[in-house]
Amino acid sequence: MNIYPSAELIWQVGFSKNEDIVPSEYVDASVPGAVQLDWAKAKGMPDWQYSLNARQYRWMEDVFWHYKTQMPDIRGEQLFLCSGGIDYKYKVVIGGETRFEHEGMFTPFEINVSDVEAGTPIEIIVFPAPKQPITPGEPLRALNRDEIIVSDVGDRREAAQSAKPAVSYGWDWHPRLIPLGIWEEIRVEARPFCHIKQFEALYTMSNDLKTAHIEFNTMLSFLGHVRYDIFAPNGEKLLSTFERNIDLEEPLLWWPNGYGEQNLYTITASLVDDSGTVLDVKSTRIGFRELHLEVYPGAWSEPDTFPKTRSNPPTKLIVNNVPVFARGSNWVNPEVFPGTITYDRYLEQIKLAKDANFNIFRVWGGGIINKESFFDICDEMGILVWQEFPLACNNYVGTKEYLDVLDEESKAIIKRLRHRACLALWCGGNELFNGWSAMTEQSLALRLLNSNCYIYDRHRPFFMTSPLMGMAHGCYLFKYQDGREVYEAMNNSDFTAYTEFGVPSISPVENLRAVIPADELFPIEKTEAWVEHHGFEAWGAPNWLCLETLEGYFGKAETLEELQANSSWLSCEGYKAIFEEARRQKPRCSMAINWCYQEPWMTAANNSLIAYPNTLKPAYFAVKDACRHKMFSLRIEKFSHKVGEKVCVTPYVLNDTSDAIKKGEADIFIEYDGKKEKVGHFVYGKAAPYENFAGEKAEFTLPDIKANEFTLIIGDGDMASSYRLLKVK
Amino acid sequence: MNIYPSAELIWQVGFSKNEDIVPSEYVDASVPGAVQLDWAKAKGMPDWQYSLNARQYRWMEDVFWHYKTQMPDIRGEQLFLCSGGIDYKYKVVIGGETRFEHEGMFTPFEINVSDVEAGTPIEIIVFPAPKQPITPGEPLRALNRDEIIVSDVGDRREAAQSAKPAVSYGWDWHPRLIPLGIWEEIRVEARPFCHIKQFEALYTMSNDLKTAHIEFNTMLSFLGHVRYDIFAPNGEKLLSTFERNIDLEEPLLWWPNGYGEQNLYTITASLVDDSGTVLDVKSTRIGFRELHLEVYPGAWSEPDTFPKTRSNPPTKLIVNNVPVFARGSNWVNPEVFPGTITYDRYLEQIKLAKDANFNIFRVWGGGIINKESFFDICDEMGILVWQEFPLACNNYVGTKEYLDVLDEESKAIIKRLRHRACLALWCGGNELFNGWSAMTEQSLALRLLNSNCYIYDRHRPFFMTSPLMGMAHGCYLFKYQDGREVYEAMNNSDFTAYTEFGVPSISPVENLRAVIPADELFPIEKTEAWVEHHGFEAWGAPNWLCLETLEGYFGKAETLEELQANSSWLSCEGYKAIFEEARRQKPRCSMAINWCYQEPWMTAANNSLIAYPNTLKPAYFAVKDACRHKMFSLRIEKFSHKVGEKVCVTPYVLNDTSDAIKKGEADIFIEYDGKKEKVGHFVYGKAAPYENFAGEKAEFTLPDIKANEFTLIIGDGDMASSYRLLKVK
Repeated sequence: MNIYPSAELIWQVGFSKNEDIVPSEYVDASVPGAVQLDWAKAKGMPDWQYSLNARQYRWMEDVFWHYKTQMPDIRGEQLFLCSGGIDYKYKVVIGGETRFEHEGMFTPFEINVSDVEAGTPIEIIVFPAPKQPITPGEPLRALNRDEIIVSDVGDRREAAQSAKPAVSYGWDWHPRLIPLGIWEEIRVEARPFCHIKQFEALYTMSNDLKTAHIEFNTMLSFLGHVRYDIFAPNGEKLLSTFERNIDLEEPLLWWPNGYGEQNLYTITASLVDDSGTVLDVKSTRIGFRELHLEVYPGAWSEPDTFPKTRSNPPTKLIVNNVPVFARGSNWVNPEVFPGTITYDRYLEQIKLAKDANFNIFRVWGGGIINKESFFDICDEMGILVWQEFPLACNNYVGTKEYLDVLDEESKAIIKRLRHRACLALWCGGNELFNGWSAMTEQSLALRLLNSNCYIYDRHRPFFMTSPLMGMAHGCYLFKYQDGREVYEAMNNSDFTAYTEFGVPSISPVENLRAVIPADELFPIEKTEAWVEHHGFEAWGAPNWLCLETLEGYFGKAETLEELQANSSWLSCEGYKAIFEEARRQKPRCSMAINWCYQEPWMTAANNSLIAYPNTLKPAYFAVKDACRHKMFSLRIEKFSHKVGEKVCVTPYVLNDTSDAIKKGEADIFIEYDGKKEKVGHFVYGKAAPYENFAGEKAEFTLPDIKANEFTLIIGDGDMASSYRLLKVK
Repeated sequence: MNIYPSAELIWQVGFSKNEDIVPSEYVDASVPGAVQLDWAKAKGMPDWQYSLNARQYRWMEDVFWHYKTQMPDIRGEQLFLCSGGIDYKYKVVIGGETRFEHEGMFTPFEINVSDVEAGTPIEIIVFPAPKQPITPGEPLRALNRDEIIVSDVGDRREAAQSAKPAVSYGWDWHPRLIPLGIWEEIRVEARPFCHIKQFEALYTMSNDLKTAHIEFNTMLSFLGHVRYDIFAPNGEKLLSTFERNIDLEEPLLWWPNGYGEQNLYTITASLVDDSGTVLDVKSTRIGFRELHLEVYPGAWSEPDTFPKTRSNPPTKLIVNNVPVFARGSNWVNPEVFPGTITYDRYLEQIKLAKDANFNIFRVWGGGIINKESFFDICDEMGILVWQEFPLACNNYVGTKEYLDVLDEESKAIIKRLRHRACLALWCGGNELFNGWSAMTEQSLALRLLNSNCYIYDRHRPFFMTSPLMGMAHGCYLFKYQDGREVYEAMNNSDFTAYTEFGVPSISPVENLRAVIPADELFPIEKTEAWVEHHGFEAWGAPNWLCLETLEGYFGKAETLEELQANSSWLSCEGYKAIFEEARRQKPRCSMAINWCYQEPWMTAANNSLIAYPNTLKPAYFAVKDACRHKMFSLRIEKFSHKVGEKVCVTPYVLNDTSDAIKKGEADIFIEYDGKKEKVGHFVYGKAAPYENFAGEKAEFTLPDIKANEFTLIIGDGDMASSYRLLKVK
């Protein structure tokens, strides 16, 4: 999208207890940003990440914030104040007159300010954060008390009945901090009288994928002629037309990471006058691909007994007629204050996903709808986006007020993103059909979202929520609360998609030092700082430090470093167990998407693969290995073994590539005490492209090992895999 | 709805091979009706019900039918040709000019014919029945070959991609006969220049059910004032207003049968001129009630293990804050030719449902959307209507052509019916999420229906199909194909709703004599007539005569009457076993709706409770007993027992009433060889209103019985129940 001439706006911000009361003090505002950060900087407030400091920021949720600037001195036939969105409820007052009011951070707006003189005050008044009153026993929600986070300042239930991302109200890995303010770009643009107000290119593919039927959707501010130019991924101009519907023959297709190139075409819309002079230009970039969902082979003959219920819904992604096993992660906000997220921040994290052999992010409904640059980079990296609407773990009741807000916000979101190649599917939100949310197919909010997605973007799949029937979330522990290990639980499951699961690890020691007071660091006791950073009491009985589990396997740790290393060991092996088992369960299973990718502040411990701001945890590398497009894999049955005990493994070739598997052989080794011995031999046969080959279960006796660990290895070279297990007495 | 002055139209009908070719012959047409009946009557064709005669009617599906009449000589300021709908694709040609074209039988139309002179020809050209080509191996459908009906003239798959009810293409109990023609009223109306084009009253109830917020939705042909008068159920005028929104305080509520009165208010809209003279009047009738769905108690804590999928969707009907256990039947077309259905035909059958203690019809998606009088009577009788759209057992692919037809038809259906008190829920269609249909939540047709229901009638529940997760269909046999009896299968199930299930019985002997050639009647052999009437080969391996099952229990029958009596015995006991077990499974289970209520022609054997045209089968009375609002019930474990064998029964009080169950006692008896002996005693405790009381399993030894049967009885008086079981050697 090209940018018109625009003038920099200098903003200040202050607060008052009422929208009509002028703040007694203003401070410099960084825009885009958040009011909390501006105020804290001006007042020298302590870093909110450290210890309990975030609590000092909480009063800022409940006041009115007044941004002010002045109309700049800028020339142009038409002037527009343009915003990508303001967080959350606000009004725009220009020269004392309210020109726009809105609830919801995801709807962009533009206000014609051609009549506004330079120097006229422009004010944006941001209302207190929305808070649904929480009345004990009210019928709104049917929450499982074990599952929710309750603190003295409210909980995530306060986010119900608004389109504000729920995560900010406190989560089991996220502080209670509710950002407010101008979180997207805002500027005054000078445009010609006749200009392009809106331009997008949408397409459908012919069944044979040979032809893209493209439709240009353009709105002008006045009458005019628009020329469309299409440029190939290599920059070559392919065609130039004044038609609004064209067929592009044999386009290069766009593919998810690992399945082919990310071919992106650029299309420009040029407003031209009778002499051919270009008055205005806008451009867009599209990738041509067909994507739909299918059921797994055999799904239609299940269930097979009477009385007979329904078959499972589809979860298998088909892109350009090729089955894509979804390997990826749940993307959460990379920052607590989304106004601070930059292109570079997105780039560094999405690049790491590509490097980790991922092809999908589930953009979880507790967080924001990301900025344009997120989607630009996902388009370029081949990372599919499962995009949820901002509903999570609450019962969003279909009152008229809420539905009106959701209607506007969802339409803005759909229209903004529907041209994206990376956008794989829409989803109503997170865990809405589970007890702690208690929403159902009958919930009007979800029916509205289905309706809007159908009306504005019908060819993209729509899930009401995750998990649906046959899909699963969790668990989030190496050792479950019921005593099962992750191996046992996963190896005995048969879900169609694992769209959340996690194995926590303690954060890097340098992060712990940055947020936990030094005198509380080690040995770890349940202090307020550890609780605040979710080391303890994160999620009912379990906690992300998992000290009991660690002590159970490894005994008491001598140092923080040792504890952290053991925790990472479990996280690595646990994550491999899940990712690889999900892949082994292909074709019934078609998705492995872990909880979660990154984190927006320094936690004490977390399921994340990347610690804040961008430190790769050992689990990142384990997951990267477990997501190789083609690899050997061993199904492991448990973590700890005694000398002389039988060890059982089942070998596989996992194959998500277009290559058929040819007959071959691989050895299975055990490595311990500096030795490497062969314990098995895997002869594998043929399998078609995108299909695995499963071997037979094999067993061997654990030799006399001195160390407390041993490693199983299958194969050698790029496809080799290894598993580090525990020897116990 | 009031009727304007109108003139009778005299119709004739003929056929040709093309819409532009005038038929060489016309015959008198009965309107509303069907072209097949007109032609057959004129030509003296044999009764299509008898033997194989229906096959002689099949060519009529594939020609163009031309109805003709003349513009009547009628005076009025404005004249309109008004139709309730024409089956299926047609155009209306007046004086040689095409004035209206449409595909779909459920959209009414009106054409302004004020400019048409008396005597001008009016022609309605009805196109051949829609037939989706069936190409083996095409990706459109993923059918389980065992589950479909294939004949030499096509099968139900031909109904895909149209909004024509699929049942007419042949079903396991319905002949292949595809009606065409004018199936609803059609007339020329004389209206004043300023008249009421449309009037409806919609409402929402306040949470406390004390206030109805009523909105009048009125469209006039010109400017004017409309007065609204509201009349109480007793006829008393309550208020008169010119406001379009009013609150009615403390309205008498409308209740389903068995739960209270069916209070219906009449509302008139009167178009008045400045002097107060009434120019036009329309009226409507509404019942005030709130209805929604809830999950069963405990649903939100299921599933309780990780990896964790979703909870079951809600199926429990709550009407006016009271839980209503849905007891009822699947309504199918009462006639093969829906144009012949009259008010009286609906009345006699719906009255029987009320008598049978039913409170719901599932109006199955294979059939039509019924005429107004169906809903008038259901409103009056308190029979809730689960209304499906015309999709059944096919994959209706979301092509633009199909979605356009479905969009128009569904909007017409929703707008016509949304004011109905009896209308409980919308449903996309029948068994669409099962293998033989292979549709999913992603199917655009179902997303469109959800969207249209949301936009036009959002407060009414919407199911995409039946069964959903947790709900079940089937089986349709006393003895399942896998060898289980209905007792074992049902007693070991735990579904949330049984929305189809059946136990067939052989049709009344007089019906068999009417449709099977006399020389084929007995002993029964698999002749073409028996197959045509679905005695054999109805549904894969099973057949509705179930001769093997009958012989297995009872040995070879000596007469047709004996065979029919034994078949009815199984049907009665099987139906009681299912209805009562579903009720015993309350509160997890909330619906028992059998397949099916009636039949549109004389079958050889069927799951229906009522034989064509209106003969009550023994099963009707058994089901009526099993649906008493409050009753004793015994869980039976199997049908046949040996002398000296242990017989196990579990006693219940089933209670769907507002009465609490008080402590009490009931005896259990066995009756055999003219004797009645006490074999058990049931002491029951307290239970709240609408709750059952479950007893402990009891057992006794079967005495020495001479006859081949015995009867178990629990209790006496109105609540007593009995079960007739088989003694074997």
